[in-house]
Amino acid sequence: MKALTRLIFVDDNNEKFFGEGPYRLLRGVERTGSLRATAMEMGMSYTKALKLVNNAEKELGFQFTTRVVGGKSGGGSMLTEQGKEWLNRYEKYRDACLKENERLYREYYGE
Amino acid sequence: MKALTRLIFVDDNNEKFFGEGPYRLLRGVERTGSLRATAMEMGMSYTKALKLVNNAEKELGFQFTTRVVGGKSGGGSMLTEQGKEWLNRYEKYRDACLKENERLYREYYGE
Repeated sequence: MKALTRLIFVDDNNEKFFGEGPYRLLRGVERTGSLRATAMEMGMSYTKALKLVNNAEKELGFQFTTRVVGGKSGGGSMLTEQGKEWLNRYEKYRDACLKENERLYREYYGE
Repeated sequence: MKALTRLIFVDDNNEKFFGEGPYRLLRGVERTGSLRATAMEMGMSYTKALKLVNNAEKELGFQFTTRVVGGKSGGGSMLTEQGKEWLNRYEKYRDACLKENERLYREYYGE
């Protein structure tokens, strides 16, 4: 057995607006240049993916993605600088929590 | 905004078998003496509640509850000693994680 940690960012009404799903989605946009392709990879509908991103953007007050027009692939999306910064900070915070929680797990449940 | 922490205990196949739901359910049994009444309080079907408890018991290899037969209320359930010990340890571990994660939140997202 082991204990997993999930971090859920909520707004003032306790509505979820960020977590591992949006994180993976946006890292996918960074890698593939396409929200639609990333959603497909994750087995998520494009509508759902768009909703997750819009919802997080609305709460945080900045854009995660910006449209890239034209080019060989006919355009797509890329991350904004603010978007990248948020993802990097989330990643550091999440990893610090996971590390601490694993240490505590060994303390409470270890051999 | 704030970040919530959810802890999920999984078996070797990464199947969830314990977390805040079963914890609240079993603390309810301790308080009310009835799994059925607790499930109802939580808006959960009795079948679902029974499944959660059985599933955790199967993975952990001990009984959480024991039947109380007869009496004014016509019987019910109470926690076993091993069950209480598990809940107490889970509670301490969970609270330690929450405290650490809140400290880290202030470090990464604080004013």
